[in-house]
Amino acid sequence: MRVAIVGAGCTKLGEHWMKSLRDLSTEAGALALKDAGIDGKKIQSLYIGNMSAGRFIGQEHLGALAVDQAGLNPIPATRCESACASGALAFRKAYLSILSGEYDIVMAGGAEKMTDIKGSGAIATLMGAGDQEWESSVGLTFVGLYAIMAKAYMEKYKLTRKELSLVPVKNHKHGLNNPYAQFNYEITTDDVLRSPIIADPLRLLDCSPITDGAAAVVLVSERIAKKFKNPIWILGSGQASDTLALHNRKSLTEIPATKIAARKAYEQAKVKPKDIDIAEVHDCFSIAEILAYEDLGFSERGKGKELLLKKDAMIGGRIPVNTDGGLKMGHPVGATGIKQIVEVVKQLRGEASNQVRNARVGLTHNIGGSGASCLVHILGRE
Amino acid sequence: MRVAIVGAGCTKLGEHWMKSLRDLSTEAGALALKDAGIDGKKIQSLYIGNMSAGRFIGQEHLGALAVDQAGLNPIPATRCESACASGALAFRKAYLSILSGEYDIVMAGGAEKMTDIKGSGAIATLMGAGDQEWESSVGLTFVGLYAIMAKAYMEKYKLTRKELSLVPVKNHKHGLNNPYAQFNYEITTDDVLRSPIIADPLRLLDCSPITDGAAAVVLVSERIAKKFKNPIWILGSGQASDTLALHNRKSLTEIPATKIAARKAYEQAKVKPKDIDIAEVHDCFSIAEILAYEDLGFSERGKGKELLLKKDAMIGGRIPVNTDGGLKMGHPVGATGIKQIVEVVKQLRGEASNQVRNARVGLTHNIGGSGASCLVHILGRE
Repeated sequence: MRVAIVGAGCTKLGEHWMKSLRDLSTEAGALALKDAGIDGKKIQSLYIGNMSAGRFIGQEHLGALAVDQAGLNPIPATRCESACASGALAFRKAYLSILSGEYDIVMAGGAEKMTDIKGSGAIATLMGAGDQEWESSVGLTFVGLYAIMAKAYMEKYKLTRKELSLVPVKNHKHGLNNPYAQFNYEITTDDVLRSPIIADPLRLLDCSPITDGAAAVVLVSERIAKKFKNPIWILGSGQASDTLALHNRKSLTEIPATKIAARKAYEQAKVKPKDIDIAEVHDCFSIAEILAYEDLGFSERGKGKELLLKKDAMIGGRIPVNTDGGLKMGHPVGATGIKQIVEVVKQLRGEASNQVRNARVGLTHNIGGSGASCLVHILGRE
Repeated sequence: MRVAIVGAGCTKLGEHWMKSLRDLSTEAGALALKDAGIDGKKIQSLYIGNMSAGRFIGQEHLGALAVDQAGLNPIPATRCESACASGALAFRKAYLSILSGEYDIVMAGGAEKMTDIKGSGAIATLMGAGDQEWESSVGLTFVGLYAIMAKAYMEKYKLTRKELSLVPVKNHKHGLNNPYAQFNYEITTDDVLRSPIIADPLRLLDCSPITDGAAAVVLVSERIAKKFKNPIWILGSGQASDTLALHNRKSLTEIPATKIAARKAYEQAKVKPKDIDIAEVHDCFSIAEILAYEDLGFSERGKGKELLLKKDAMIGGRIPVNTDGGLKMGHPVGATGIKQIVEVVKQLRGEASNQVRNARVGLTHNIGGSGASCLVHILGRE
């Protein structure tokens, strides 16, 4: 049996001082329902990705919160968490629940309200994605973990600081047309170099922001999909885990969970990296996008920068990556994986803000922590 | 296709000052594997229920933590959360993942480390299961919510304080033989009355404790189940949601999510309440067990106390409830739903510490919050 996406919606990403998590999740759900052209009462089960509302806003029990606020009681609701990959995890679980035969119409969403926590609370909360006993407790931050990877990669593969800056420069450019983007200005490699060091070699403009936001999609079984115009099919879904702590990995210059999740998704979809027309990858920090190029097979190991130097990863290039600007344009951690799906769905339908011509197959890549979990999905139009 | 449970294990429940969440979850997993007689490398996917490790110990990303510590990388790992029903939620998602055809052997576990948080932190953290905007923010605690239900019920159905005390008296008695129990002493109704008021009318001995602990089970597809001795089958699984806030419910003296989840589970299992030989129900506070009797159909509305007065809910009675002492003997919130499954599996195999003679069909009932989510499972032996 196949499963299709028939509705997709995303809130504006940014600092939503006047909206709570329940407001944002309901807004995203309503957008997805409207897009699908169905009433909420048709939804049989709901999956929500959220990383850390317990710490951000003192609220757990997010499945119940989401269905309650949306007036969808008493349908079953499930909160899924895998740090910053919570969104894609909720998507995959919704997909499996349809394959199980239990449901025909399921909503998968993601939401995070990150700006309500005070002071450095967000930084400490985000380290919940790392290893509390072995990383957080000694003072490591998430940008610190990716800085370690960046240092190792730059040394091993002779990546210059200026070349690394091409990632956020591209993504700010892509984000210009994105109506959901948290930022709407271009930057130059000089701007990146002039921005404050956060964890050497990573600077402020290498970092995805603290973001409030939510996104949702409607999934349906093949039997139901015929009733909808323009269904987008889930061709492949892969998920993998790795050591929670970065220091336990054999290499600092690749993320094995990405490679394993991608291999499964490619095998299931019966496609190869060269068949991918567009991709949304997890650029939480600049170096992460270059690692993704290589781990996903878009580039040979150590040569990821060539996709930037040759503009292959730009709109109009061989494999446009992060056509909406990626995580750099907003990273509401638990929602990000769904936001990526929303962008790829729009691209495959021909409705994206930075439309890639004749995109037929798209990929999403969502990472938890420093790579302890990864989900890759491949979507395609008829 | 049918799904069976072929291994089950539970750690000692209590205050584990020398063990961390990763220690406890791994211990439970190892017990379940040993019980199943299989190597961990056979597990294809892992689901873990956890309510609030982000706040209790500063750790999210619990799926990755569990598979990492168990040496099971790179298998997919999923953390499920639905407050105190997180364990049963993880169980149900593991069950659906096998029905989906994706996996044949899956582990479902639950773990919570509640004693590491300082001062009144546990009380505040547990209110993450309630409504942060409308309940926590005005100072309600969880025992306060159940006290409201107890007051309303006692008034409406003329339940006396002494009759309410029969719930913990029974459960302490049942817990005496339970090797995992946090407590191992009997209490009297006078002891309950003499214990401090926590939220009138509920007293200290009406409350389940703050507990560290973990539990795990191994689920397999029907195809694989033949290889194991004594598989216990999942006959029915129901899940339902309700309003997050108690004040939005139409009644304070019943929990609709239990009724809906139970109806689905009974229908799927093709059994009626009278066919249930044993049950593990969610007695987070004394009143909750009496509500469960009625919502699950073991008793008419308003007459739940008769199961206690007539000793029907005791070992040797018509429908022994909480044969291991229930949540009163330990409530590691995210693990509780799995711990209940473990007890029912042991009963159906004839291996329980308070064995009920010839138990063939058992039920588990796991609630999130004040009833905003509920999962009911019905298990049976061949």
